[in-house]
Amino acid sequence: MSDAVNLADKLSTFANHWSPKIVAGFNGCDVMVVKALGAFTWHSHPDTDDFFLVLKGRLRIEMRDGDVTLGPGELYVVPKGVEHRPVAEEEVHLLLIEPAGTPNTGDTATAARKDTI
Amino acid sequence: MSDAVNLADKLSTFANHWSPKIVAGFNGCDVMVVKALGAFTWHSHPDTDDFFLVLKGRLRIEMRDGDVTLGPGELYVVPKGVEHRPVAEEEVHLLLIEPAGTPNTGDTATAARKDTI
Repeated sequence: MSDAVNLADKLSTFANHWSPKIVAGFNGCDVMVVKALGAFTWHSHPDTDDFFLVLKGRLRIEMRDGDVTLGPGELYVVPKGVEHRPVAEEEVHLLLIEPAGTPNTGDTATAARKDTI
Repeated sequence: MSDAVNLADKLSTFANHWSPKIVAGFNGCDVMVVKALGAFTWHSHPDTDDFFLVLKGRLRIEMRDGDVTLGPGELYVVPKGVEHRPVAEEEVHLLLIEPAGTPNTGDTATAARKDTI
């Protein structure tokens, strides 16, 4: 039997940005925490929705038809195929869920490696 | 384009226990908030893992080979097929994720209806 996953504890174990860490699995999806700062690349995922939950800080998700800004305890699901660019003016801590193997940039050539912590 | 989902705001709109409310969709899954108090029924889901994230309060997930207790910011995924009984000694607020149509009791005959809020 596995232990409970304390998200703040997991986040305290690393400092790098835009480098998702896997903390649990759910039906073939990776449940991940990530720290983000600055602007990510514009990208989309043709085959999967993109789940964002802010744990700490603030995240703006820019999309071609408008932005959504999330604070702590707020979530947003970017529908599959929708181009988006996450932007964090200050450091933000996020919970992400994606099917295992999904490249975070939408492109396996540029995707971050996802370690389990 | 949909709005950000503020989980506390959603939770403030209802008071009943063990009645999950759908707040978003993710790849055919329902993303839900629920308030819980007391002991739920022992059950399992043969075809899906069961995702729990505590937003407020404390939840004990009893399983046949041991219990896991979750506080705010802690998550646990009960693997598919594993019998479990969620117990909240005081009211707990949870984020749940399940494939759409999954009965919360593991049995469609006794499952709660899930409204979208």
